[in-house]
Amino acid sequence: MSTIFSKIINGEIPSYKIAENDKFVAFLDAMPLVKGHTLVVPKKEIDLIFDLDSEDYKELWAFTQEIAKQIKKAIACKRVGVAVVGLEVPHAHIHLVPLNTVDDLNFKNVRKVFTPEEYKEIQESITKA
Amino acid sequence: MSTIFSKIINGEIPSYKIAENDKFVAFLDAMPLVKGHTLVVPKKEIDLIFDLDSEDYKELWAFTQEIAKQIKKAIACKRVGVAVVGLEVPHAHIHLVPLNTVDDLNFKNVRKVFTPEEYKEIQESITKA
Repeated sequence: MSTIFSKIINGEIPSYKIAENDKFVAFLDAMPLVKGHTLVVPKKEIDLIFDLDSEDYKELWAFTQEIAKQIKKAIACKRVGVAVVGLEVPHAHIHLVPLNTVDDLNFKNVRKVFTPEEYKEIQESITKA
Repeated sequence: MSTIFSKIINGEIPSYKIAENDKFVAFLDAMPLVKGHTLVVPKKEIDLIFDLDSEDYKELWAFTQEIAKQIKKAIACKRVGVAVVGLEVPHAHIHLVPLNTVDDLNFKNVRKVFTPEEYKEIQESITKA
């Protein structure tokens, strides 16, 4: 059974994409902690990020560096935080979370809700950054 | 003024080191969220991790991959989580946190306290893994 992220990658589930290449994709988190919360995901379905082969793993982080810089330009924040947790979806993913306080990275927080129009606006602001 | 991490790197402040090369160092967090919580730090004093030049940045994550695998072998946990926050110390650092629940990565949690003997035991278990 394919993961929810594979379904997003395959277009079976819609998403607000930020960037994509042959190996990786970045899209807005559907349950964001804050505005601009983005997921970076390898297309290869692998559970633990540290189990990626070392080349794919380094390329994934390089891809993430570019996305994080775009988010920092587009979203008002002190810095872009990173989290890898993955206890819920067995498909490695990196959270990029614009931070103003340490509590912005608390996964127990109530998630933000945006309208489709707001999502599109956030998506555009990051992709154009 | 050098950061607290530079003082640890220079040996002015003691730490329980896990690994070190010419560019990076890993040591046990002095205020751990859980047993085995480790920091990975570039020796170069730079605030934002995404401002590292792309080669150093990729090498830092490659170094981190090896440390994370050692932690996973040594410490009972479901997986090793990652966080980059950095709102308190302006010297880029990666948190590696053995996770059993998502709340193990909550930076608002009360920190664990270990005796020097316990720290040494944790250090040895990881370095020997």
